[in-house]
Amino acid sequence: MSQSSTLSPFFNARGVAILGASTNPKKLSYGIVENLLKYHYAGQVYPVNPNAAEVLGLKAYPSVTDVPDPVDLAVIVLPVTTILENLTACGERGIKAVIIITGGFKELGPEGAAVEDAAHEVAKRYGMRVVGPNCVGTVDIRTGLNTTFIKGLPDPGPIAFISQSGAICGGVIDLIADTHIGFSHFASLGNEMDVSEADMLEYFGEDSNVKVIAMYVEGLKDGPRFMQIAREVTARKPVVFLKAGKNEAGAKAVSSHTGSLAGSYAAYQAALRQCGVIEVNTIHELFNAAWALGCQPLPSGNRVAITTNAGGAAALASDSLASNGFTLATIHPDIQAKLRTRLNPSAQVSNPVDMLGSVSPEDYIWSLSNLDNDPGVDVLLPILVPQALVDTAGVAQAWIEIAKNTQKTMLTCLMGNISTKQAADLLNMAKVPVYDVPDAAGPVLKALKEYADIRERTRTEPVTGDPKAKAEVDRLLAAHPKGSALGEAETRDLLNAYGIPNVPGGMAENVSKAVEIAERVGYPVALKVVAEKILHKSDAGGIVLNLKNEEELRVAYEEITSRITKNYPDAGLCGAMVEAMAPRGQEVIVGMSRDVTFGPVMLFGMGGTLVELVKDVSRGIAPLGKDEIIAMIDETAAGKLLRGYRGGSPADIDAVVDAIEKLTQLALAHPGIQEIEINPLVVYEKAHGALALDSRAILGM
Amino acid sequence: MSQSSTLSPFFNARGVAILGASTNPKKLSYGIVENLLKYHYAGQVYPVNPNAAEVLGLKAYPSVTDVPDPVDLAVIVLPVTTILENLTACGERGIKAVIIITGGFKELGPEGAAVEDAAHEVAKRYGMRVVGPNCVGTVDIRTGLNTTFIKGLPDPGPIAFISQSGAICGGVIDLIADTHIGFSHFASLGNEMDVSEADMLEYFGEDSNVKVIAMYVEGLKDGPRFMQIAREVTARKPVVFLKAGKNEAGAKAVSSHTGSLAGSYAAYQAALRQCGVIEVNTIHELFNAAWALGCQPLPSGNRVAITTNAGGAAALASDSLASNGFTLATIHPDIQAKLRTRLNPSAQVSNPVDMLGSVSPEDYIWSLSNLDNDPGVDVLLPILVPQALVDTAGVAQAWIEIAKNTQKTMLTCLMGNISTKQAADLLNMAKVPVYDVPDAAGPVLKALKEYADIRERTRTEPVTGDPKAKAEVDRLLAAHPKGSALGEAETRDLLNAYGIPNVPGGMAENVSKAVEIAERVGYPVALKVVAEKILHKSDAGGIVLNLKNEEELRVAYEEITSRITKNYPDAGLCGAMVEAMAPRGQEVIVGMSRDVTFGPVMLFGMGGTLVELVKDVSRGIAPLGKDEIIAMIDETAAGKLLRGYRGGSPADIDAVVDAIEKLTQLALAHPGIQEIEINPLVVYEKAHGALALDSRAILGM
Repeated sequence: MSQSSTLSPFFNARGVAILGASTNPKKLSYGIVENLLKYHYAGQVYPVNPNAAEVLGLKAYPSVTDVPDPVDLAVIVLPVTTILENLTACGERGIKAVIIITGGFKELGPEGAAVEDAAHEVAKRYGMRVVGPNCVGTVDIRTGLNTTFIKGLPDPGPIAFISQSGAICGGVIDLIADTHIGFSHFASLGNEMDVSEADMLEYFGEDSNVKVIAMYVEGLKDGPRFMQIAREVTARKPVVFLKAGKNEAGAKAVSSHTGSLAGSYAAYQAALRQCGVIEVNTIHELFNAAWALGCQPLPSGNRVAITTNAGGAAALASDSLASNGFTLATIHPDIQAKLRTRLNPSAQVSNPVDMLGSVSPEDYIWSLSNLDNDPGVDVLLPILVPQALVDTAGVAQAWIEIAKNTQKTMLTCLMGNISTKQAADLLNMAKVPVYDVPDAAGPVLKALKEYADIRERTRTEPVTGDPKAKAEVDRLLAAHPKGSALGEAETRDLLNAYGIPNVPGGMAENVSKAVEIAERVGYPVALKVVAEKILHKSDAGGIVLNLKNEEELRVAYEEITSRITKNYPDAGLCGAMVEAMAPRGQEVIVGMSRDVTFGPVMLFGMGGTLVELVKDVSRGIAPLGKDEIIAMIDETAAGKLLRGYRGGSPADIDAVVDAIEKLTQLALAHPGIQEIEINPLVVYEKAHGALALDSRAILGM
Repeated sequence: MSQSSTLSPFFNARGVAILGASTNPKKLSYGIVENLLKYHYAGQVYPVNPNAAEVLGLKAYPSVTDVPDPVDLAVIVLPVTTILENLTACGERGIKAVIIITGGFKELGPEGAAVEDAAHEVAKRYGMRVVGPNCVGTVDIRTGLNTTFIKGLPDPGPIAFISQSGAICGGVIDLIADTHIGFSHFASLGNEMDVSEADMLEYFGEDSNVKVIAMYVEGLKDGPRFMQIAREVTARKPVVFLKAGKNEAGAKAVSSHTGSLAGSYAAYQAALRQCGVIEVNTIHELFNAAWALGCQPLPSGNRVAITTNAGGAAALASDSLASNGFTLATIHPDIQAKLRTRLNPSAQVSNPVDMLGSVSPEDYIWSLSNLDNDPGVDVLLPILVPQALVDTAGVAQAWIEIAKNTQKTMLTCLMGNISTKQAADLLNMAKVPVYDVPDAAGPVLKALKEYADIRERTRTEPVTGDPKAKAEVDRLLAAHPKGSALGEAETRDLLNAYGIPNVPGGMAENVSKAVEIAERVGYPVALKVVAEKILHKSDAGGIVLNLKNEEELRVAYEEITSRITKNYPDAGLCGAMVEAMAPRGQEVIVGMSRDVTFGPVMLFGMGGTLVELVKDVSRGIAPLGKDEIIAMIDETAAGKLLRGYRGGSPADIDAVVDAIEKLTQLALAHPGIQEIEINPLVVYEKAHGALALDSRAILGM
């Protein structure tokens, strides 16, 4: 717990004032006072209501100004029209933390946004931290400081949940409150006028009562700051993340909802992976993963031993394991022999250990304790499908005994609902995660393994760009208006400044310049027309390859320019690029596009014309350390080809890393560049480098 | 209901004998008699037990021979050692349908398999149909004929569930019995000594009480027969399928369990799609999809209108829709204007319609009935996150009213559990599917849309192969021993016989033969060494391209053969292929491998050396109609390229279809061919054909 943080009063206030506390049980503000009493908050509760003497038996105060010490937190549940006045009153009273439950701000449009901005100014003036507006408050389950009106509350436990949506926060509590999955905190953030998900993440990162952080996020306010804090937090404890608004439809639902700008989902995925945050796809996965991370040891490997009373259930579990990167462990022959000595003679003792329908608690104790001794097993996954003659609660108790003593990860499945609910409660209460279907285990193990890998990851520091290169590119960019599209002729100069090698060549405004360049780079050469309005040079007949001498070059130059002049008189013909014929190599794409949330998103993948069809690409947010760039490359089929696929010779990966690194520096130093792309970058054999064969860029507006 | 089917007694028996009915409440057989009484089975129940006068108040008979008429069904719950004797007694008594609950047969190994085979012989002798052994029986919820010992039973309804695993059957009932999702039948099949999943599928396909069939399958007994029946059934009603044992690990769990051979999962996927069966990935998806298919109309399109009281929940739903091929409908401006007139002024009336937290049942009636009038909306998806002041049951009632009157598909979400259980029950009872999280809707809609598309699909009849071609290939194959690997030299003759065009060329055992072939096909030519043990000709320096005349050819032939003789003296050099240099075109792969369950699996995809890296392939089970072949092609990126990607000219797809069709005929006519592959098949521009540039085959053992 970080008492020193400015967010501390939201969870450790010695006294709370509720502005707008009603005596009407149908009002939300009444529910807040009720919850503060119900969950045994030990601090002072001060209802503020000029029209009541008391609320729920507590003395009410006419104004926040009248509230006595100690008061560290105010909760405002009053109309938006009175917000500035009430916030000011809180500030004057010396309160440093305020939760604004009230809605009607930014989420309703420009007028609401103006009020929100004004309120933010008041808060800043008094040095107040504000959660909300348009939220459902915060909960510390340990201290009982519950400023929400939500009915019900889960068991105390390891998970802190940060939700941008108040409704999702309430829905999750409703969904989970009777499962015995344990929570430490809830924080609904609403419009995030002041306190953002990054602030809250930082706070929970330092609170030792929080073992794992689960987040529901529609759009991050400040991508780079989030990434920085997430990197620090995930080095200490796991963070699980559910992104809403992944695509255009979802983003539309989000943006009209909280007014937040949902960035492109691909950028989110890259960013989360880079900063060690575990992404999940559904609400159920969010809490299944968080719960297992919060109460089980991380797996030391991916080898699972299943014990079951039903082969079908084991088969479904195995499928789910396999599609999440786990395998069935090979059980040591000695252990198999030992299992055999006490189990039903018809039981199967290789993995899955199938003890047949009418299994006993003792069978599970015997099989699991022996499997626990097998160093070739990383995870224990006992499964029971309840049957008429099986003691389900006894089996659950047996599993709990095993879980108490094992160092291995242990997840369990009681397939069912009616006859399993009580036994499942026992398991979760003992911090042994339990699922109602066998196929739930796979995604949870994947999350655990992902975090184990994150803990082992190292990061090389990104390299900063050369100031001289920056000065040169600044000079070059000054010549182009905002929003310009730069063709190869201009883009190669940008690449050149940062030391990314282009195929030798240059821009020729006329035929004699063309000959001059050809002589410099050496025959044979390629000729590519340059015209403002011609994007697809090849389709327009604007490319001629393999010109062997001056004569061929002169003829081709004449032909190509007169063809363009004739067929596309308004194309804005400027001349042609003359380039050496580059030897063949592996074609990759390297590029950058700037994301509204995270900044420069670097892209790597299979190059050439099939890029969009094959979609073999990976992404990373700049700045990127060398190992992050290598991970990006290795993630793609193009990367596997570079490494020497099926006996092919390995290509010069170092040259690709270097090109991506330099493009990263260029992107970071020049925010005016909206997009830049090298396609293809031709990569040669190891130690033979790579060459940009074509490139383009777009400047921001 | 098909009274005429030999499976009819399993669900419509006028009397049932239970062989081995115990008086001990701890025995499974007692549970069976109990269930028959509990669920009000109207027929006769005859416990058979030589040591008891009565069981559960019913007169017991010493032997099945003594059981009076009517008796159409016997359930055997007696030790495996007595099975032949008891089965014979049933046969002598004239009973035509038997369920063997007892385990200890094929699933335990060769000894058990022998008993099972003997029992099958007895059954065949008496013309008896047998379900099991090693199963938990069958249930007809309507008639109360419940031969299982499973506790609990779901509501009556549209879903028939076929499960190879008895435990999964029991687990599903436990999981689902209190959800009010409705079922018509359960059939657990166990070892499938006689009645297979295809038989049961056929039976349920003809039973008018069954609206949708859900299947849990570990391995199909007879792939082609299943496909034939499934094609007929899915033309009338939807079939939803969960495959267990998808991968090696899962398959291992399965095969040691029921002794069934799990075929390759990719072949299953292709087969299911071809015969119109909807595949799902989890137990929950299986029943969510079946329930919606059983009680909701199919969507007329993919446009969904969401109504909600929480933007976050709508965002999660939208993400789930988008990743399953659905979109948010554009609500007609007139409808939006109408919505505006009665909803909260701060509500959002474009899609998702967000009526804000404290919504009323009337708000939902108003928004949903107006959206129901919008022809641009195909699906209604109302969502509620329960809140302190919202009447959850009232909202559910409002949704039910709307569902009664709309022709559109309607799915719903009450996000929660504690405060939503009762309202959710109301919805399912009214046949309005409801989910506890918003992200459950997407996969269900995908299944509905898939079935709508299946209903509209037509199928051209596969073309039968030419008998002359068959005779020729039979003759060619006779020369090769079982298990042979055929190289290009031999495989091109097989292709040739079926009219699949090879690049012109031939096998030259010596240099003069090489010159003769080159003169026939015309220079320039390619030379490829042929040696028994050289698979990668290129790596071994065994390929020379572009030989322009006899002199070059002679030099190359000499060089290539002496290089092989020197470097690989034991390679078994036979000579070299001499082939015309084929013009460049798009390279695809066309192949076949024989699957243990389904027979010939045809493969199409991107060709060349990147096949395994890019994995751009589709599969289909032979025989294939032309439209099925076209669908296979269009599913891949290679197919998109053939159609003329990004302004490229369209290639000769007809030639590819023709090649696949002929390879299909070859595969069907020659079961001795285990694998055959053309890679690459080079495809030229429209009407310019395609040429097999390399090919190989493997004969079965």
